[in-house]
Amino acid sequence: MLKVIAQDFIKPEHIATVAPLYRELVERTRQEPLCISYALYVDEKDPGHFVFIEEWPDRAALDAHCSTEHFRRLVPLIDQYQRAPGTYLLMDAFR
Amino acid sequence: MLKVIAQDFIKPEHIATVAPLYRELVERTRQEPLCISYALYVDEKDPGHFVFIEEWPDRAALDAHCSTEHFRRLVPLIDQYQRAPGTYLLMDAFR
Repeated sequence: MLKVIAQDFIKPEHIATVAPLYRELVERTRQEPLCISYALYVDEKDPGHFVFIEEWPDRAALDAHCSTEHFRRLVPLIDQYQRAPGTYLLMDAFR
Repeated sequence: MLKVIAQDFIKPEHIATVAPLYRELVERTRQEPLCISYALYVDEKDPGHFVFIEEWPDRAALDAHCSTEHFRRLVPLIDQYQRAPGTYLLMDAFR
């Protein structure tokens, strides 16, 4: 199991622009056969700070996600409106 | 619904010390009646970087969690072994 937190920082004037792109990304990703969970959240203190919490069976499944048509099309469109580079964190379950 | 990411940074020589404290904190928190989900993860690149992903019905439920006996007893014990201050992020679901 691989848990992922991916964070995006969007310019305030472009939050409405990216919203439908995020919506499509979430919908299409959830249809990927290897996707266990994929949800998007917004920082209560910063409406341009978007946080994905994801779960994949393994690194290969995450890599496959990053190679899908929807990821390769939508992520660069979203990234045009960043105010700072995105971050991501790959984690294992604590045992 | 309130989603929370809480991150702790533990000194490498104390990871084994905090492990049973984290285990007890997770077990007891999951028994709280208002806890929707509460899971602990470890950064793949940093074994002292612990990440809680939590879900609560609302802020009052999170505040109640922070007032429990187990939270007030275990968190200060864990925090003794921090190498940097913990962080937390409160989020709403994206719609």
